[in-house]
Amino acid sequence: MNNRYCVIMGGGVGSRFWPYSRKNLPKQFIDFLGTGRTLLQMSFDRAKSIVPTSNIIVVTNEAYRDIVLEQLPELDEAQILLEPVRRNTAPCIAWAAFHIHALNPDASIMVSPSDHLIFNEDVFRKEIINGFEFVENHDALLTLGIKPNRPETGYGYIQIGGKSDVDGISQVKTFTEKPDIEIARIFVESGEFFWNSGIFLWSAQSILKTLHEYAPDVYCKFEAGIDKFGTSEEKNYIKEKFAECPNISIDFAVMEKAPNVYVSCVNFGWNDLGAWGVLYEYSPKSKEGNVTQNCNAMLYNCHNNMIAVKNKDKLIVASGLKNFIIADSGDVLLICPQNEEQRIKQFVNDVKSSFGDKYQ
Amino acid sequence: MNNRYCVIMGGGVGSRFWPYSRKNLPKQFIDFLGTGRTLLQMSFDRAKSIVPTSNIIVVTNEAYRDIVLEQLPELDEAQILLEPVRRNTAPCIAWAAFHIHALNPDASIMVSPSDHLIFNEDVFRKEIINGFEFVENHDALLTLGIKPNRPETGYGYIQIGGKSDVDGISQVKTFTEKPDIEIARIFVESGEFFWNSGIFLWSAQSILKTLHEYAPDVYCKFEAGIDKFGTSEEKNYIKEKFAECPNISIDFAVMEKAPNVYVSCVNFGWNDLGAWGVLYEYSPKSKEGNVTQNCNAMLYNCHNNMIAVKNKDKLIVASGLKNFIIADSGDVLLICPQNEEQRIKQFVNDVKSSFGDKYQ
Repeated sequence: MNNRYCVIMGGGVGSRFWPYSRKNLPKQFIDFLGTGRTLLQMSFDRAKSIVPTSNIIVVTNEAYRDIVLEQLPELDEAQILLEPVRRNTAPCIAWAAFHIHALNPDASIMVSPSDHLIFNEDVFRKEIINGFEFVENHDALLTLGIKPNRPETGYGYIQIGGKSDVDGISQVKTFTEKPDIEIARIFVESGEFFWNSGIFLWSAQSILKTLHEYAPDVYCKFEAGIDKFGTSEEKNYIKEKFAECPNISIDFAVMEKAPNVYVSCVNFGWNDLGAWGVLYEYSPKSKEGNVTQNCNAMLYNCHNNMIAVKNKDKLIVASGLKNFIIADSGDVLLICPQNEEQRIKQFVNDVKSSFGDKYQ
Repeated sequence: MNNRYCVIMGGGVGSRFWPYSRKNLPKQFIDFLGTGRTLLQMSFDRAKSIVPTSNIIVVTNEAYRDIVLEQLPELDEAQILLEPVRRNTAPCIAWAAFHIHALNPDASIMVSPSDHLIFNEDVFRKEIINGFEFVENHDALLTLGIKPNRPETGYGYIQIGGKSDVDGISQVKTFTEKPDIEIARIFVESGEFFWNSGIFLWSAQSILKTLHEYAPDVYCKFEAGIDKFGTSEEKNYIKEKFAECPNISIDFAVMEKAPNVYVSCVNFGWNDLGAWGVLYEYSPKSKEGNVTQNCNAMLYNCHNNMIAVKNKDKLIVASGLKNFIIADSGDVLLICPQNEEQRIKQFVNDVKSSFGDKYQ
């Protein structure tokens, strides 16, 4: 059991939830569902139910060091890996693998995002334990594929190939990024395609070997300092060298290339909480279909709106709005139709052009 | 010159501009046009150009004492009459008349609201001086009637009767409260009807005599303490007795009844700034017709909106809004179609029912 580790990736900026999610407090650090626990804390709680607390590693940007320590007081500071710059998931995962391998060469690792929703935690736990067993007995990179219940165009899809020797786990045939709606429908009907959850399992040895072979430009940045991981010199080494890593995702760097990639087909109620519409979908609604998160609202002739306000004491009085997102972060108010939520990133960029970092 | 006084009435709550105008800081105390001067300060500046500063009296609710002193540091505290309760304009004007008459029995008085817009101040000054001359030579109650430029249904109208011996000043034939649009059109076309500006001129003696005759229930409340006005006992007397006055407007109490009521027909660019639509109308607009007051805004596919934010630093990002009012006071956000602005009073009442005084 003590060979099992969980790596929680918590360095993203969550710009699709702007202005609620901000550069200095991205969505993983927000109590998005009003449960009293932030998304990061919920990820930590799930990990804790599977591995010892001392085997949980959080990788985040160094700007979030204090927030992580505050939100996860059970973590020792040594369990937080602080990236000096953002370099996407492959360098993040490579570092965590080198780090853990130095601590325990027999380690097996689950890697998960910090900002997803998982509804059935018992099934999740069972599937992760199955996954650990699989990667401890196979030289395999295992990804969790979620059984799709709708032709979602915002997700990546994994097509299953030949079965493995374990029930529910198959080889991966193809990865497909966000398909259009027609293709998505065909995918779902075929029964062969699963959503790419971004949750991975592997042994430290397998992921390092695969990085070496398929992403040598990432691998060699860490390999050059291999004697430093797990020592007091690791931090300085990363500070100097991490920025030299290419900006590349783990999917693109190895998952889409390596031959030993498997998918565990699971169904534990999962959502990537990728944008406002998802939060709307999963939140309790008034009989007019309005979601009011964290605020007092008096709504007249308003239907199917997502209203989220950071200041609990603020009162929203609205009339005549249908299918809008209204998000007030205190210094920014966003009002936009729900079907334009994909434009929020553009808004954020426009704001950056006009106002610099002020509202980022 | 030193017999001339200006009374500025500044005790209203401005609920049609809620949530921007609030019980604890109504619209007269707000820099509504972003000029650096509040509406009260602009009223004071106009008065100062006509009478000595020491002859300006502000009547307001006692809750606003500190705000008035802060906004008008040139005023001596004795020039502020503090109403212990709200009792509409007749008791307010009667008190000011008793007060000024005690200071100077030969006084002539202009009474004006504190929250109107006046665009041509030179013409205003000239007309007020004409008015002072008229009421100093006639036992008359003079009201200023604004030449209408549209069939406005939100104003009261004054019909002119026989001419006086002074050009541009006529007897009043009738007062008509807010007419419907058909009637308003007929009024405007006739050339006989003028908007009731709520700006009045009279001698202290004339208004006291008329109050005595036509509003004895108001008059007698003050007359009973006539020796106290202008002395250190005035304040306590008002504290005890003012609440006993009936709640009644000066129009209803005397203007619509007395025979010696005249109207000076003027045209100095006037607006009662009665609601958001008026502010929209008079504010500079973007080429898409949006007014953004006091805030940074990034607007996409937005047309003809009135956007007002109290916090200068706040950023508004909006998409797909047409003909809306968006008003953010910090603790309240109002979003409502401009054609529903008459419902704002209802919203305020509903909010009061649900939340008490919290957001009033």
